Amino acid sequence: MSFGDRLAERVAQRESQIVLGLDPDPAGLWPDAVERAPAQGPAVRRAASAVAMHCAALIDAAGPACVAVKPQLACFERLGADGWAVLAAVVDHARASGLLVIADGKRGDISVSAAAYARALVGSTPTPFGDVGGLGVDAFTANPLLGVDALEPMVDGARAVDAGVFVLVRTSNPGAADVQDLELDGGGTVWERLAQIVAQLGQAGEGSGLADVGAVVGATAPEHVARMRELMPDAPLLLPGIGAQGGRVEDLAPAFAPGRAGGLVSASRSIAAAHESHGGEPAAAARAEAERLRAAAWALS
Amino acid sequence: MSFGDRLAERVAQRESQIVLGLDPDPAGLWPDAVERAPAQGPAVRRAASAVAMHCAALIDAAGPACVAVKPQLACFERLGADGWAVLAAVVDHARASGLLVIADGKRGDISVSAAAYARALVGSTPTPFGDVGGLGVDAFTANPLLGVDALEPMVDGARAVDAGVFVLVRTSNPGAADVQDLELDGGGTVWERLAQIVAQLGQAGEGSGLADVGAVVGATAPEHVARMRELMPDAPLLLPGIGAQGGRVEDLAPAFAPGRAGGLVSASRSIAAAHESHGGEPAAAARAEAERLRAAAWALS
Repeated sequence: MSFGDRLAERVAQRESQIVLGLDPDPAGLWPDAVERAPAQGPAVRRAASAVAMHCAALIDAAGPACVAVKPQLACFERLGADGWAVLAAVVDHARASGLLVIADGKRGDISVSAAAYARALVGSTPTPFGDVGGLGVDAFTANPLLGVDALEPMVDGARAVDAGVFVLVRTSNPGAADVQDLELDGGGTVWERLAQIVAQLGQAGEGSGLADVGAVVGATAPEHVARMRELMPDAPLLLPGIGAQGGRVEDLAPAFAPGRAGGLVSASRSIAAAHESHGGEPAAAARAEAERLRAAAWALS
Repeated sequence: MSFGDRLAERVAQRESQIVLGLDPDPAGLWPDAVERAPAQGPAVRRAASAVAMHCAALIDAAGPACVAVKPQLACFERLGADGWAVLAAVVDHARASGLLVIADGKRGDISVSAAAYARALVGSTPTPFGDVGGLGVDAFTANPLLGVDALEPMVDGARAVDAGVFVLVRTSNPGAADVQDLELDGGGTVWERLAQIVAQLGQAGEGSGLADVGAVVGATAPEHVARMRELMPDAPLLLPGIGAQGGRVEDLAPAFAPGRAGGLVSASRSIAAAHESHGGEPAAAARAEAERLRAAAWALS
């Protein structure tokens, strides 16, 4: 079953389009995770253990209201090999909890290097000692600056294992204007060209009609979502920027035109740090905020 | 001492502008490395050990003709936590051999995630258990699609520890035409806009005049190098695409306008697989090819 169909099925099963961002900062973990870390050992080992417990607790709390988690790879890589081991454990925990996993690394490189990223994230690597499996996620984010021939090895690697790729089209930060919004000679913008590339690369699932190549579209510029949908009629849109970055679920209706799985609403800090805004225990506050977002998006779609 | 000054000093000391790309494919390692891997254990552990030995042997053979190594992060990540541990060991081996290290991950993300990449690669991460050091490289590659405010946390993180950032401006693959070469309304191309961003972000070293923010410029389009130099007068240019991808050292003269360290010539497969083209033992062939490139670039600059 293609990624588009798997995504549509999972959204229907869980009645959720919410993607729980996992951006663990070792200096800002839930207190329980820090207290339960080993009392001895190298700082990196103790920090990695605390990050693992924080992520597991966050998944256990907010996961039931979500369809997927989105680990931010930078946050794990800063703990080196220990961080990568925690990332693998977090992926396993999320999948065992019935969640899809979207690895957020925004990777992009040429030819064999692009293929190596696909092997690292969704595939496996042949070695003289036998195949070595990768992280085993369901989808990953990719950066399209290097062009179609650089995206293809990642898309091919993902498609071979029914995984998906979410390509950056227009991001949620103000600096998106510097390059993505540039106006092209002959009309249109860079991001509209990127959207065309996404539409060209994707293959629609037989059941859902949803493509296996999606787009990352910041929810902080909702005025673009209708145009995105026009350019990429079948692509699932991954919509970060809700909550902490100022985006509102209510502005995202066009994302859901191809079906409820057409828009995935990603939130990180607004869920993990909900207790700082709304009070209460971190887990209960995270669960309540994820459920609030879930109900808002579901009602809209 | 700023990265620009460090780079200029190291190029002068080693009389080399060659960057040895480390793109280890577990299915294409030097035979000695495979034979010396542990006879028992999980495939991933044995493959990681073989990759470590291959990279060390390649550094020992070709490193004396080079100023830096450039590990391709995808190639290590596909072996998971074991691969990241090998990457750290390879970085240490290269630095102990007097080489600079440029981590080639082409990272790009927004705000705190961009800062986390800088921590992972060149900085350190505060945790409740003490600071955790990152990979400790001298520079890393970055993707500018997300704009200036996404590059700044990486540049700031690097500058704080006298490290450098090489920003993608125009890559060496044919697909570079799809996005980077798009013509803009009002004149110029996307890559010329990226070059302006690089020039704006860099700070010139006091001794060398060379900036701490450089550009990745494919050597497969030498007709652009003079224009690059015009737009980025102080930026070190990292020039991949020599050898296996068809670029020629002889076409790169404008890169060296601000001094010998103004152009870094990166080669990977043409060195590591020199024995396949030229015969002989892998180590001797790699050393000869690296020395040939070194002499050609040095004579030109």
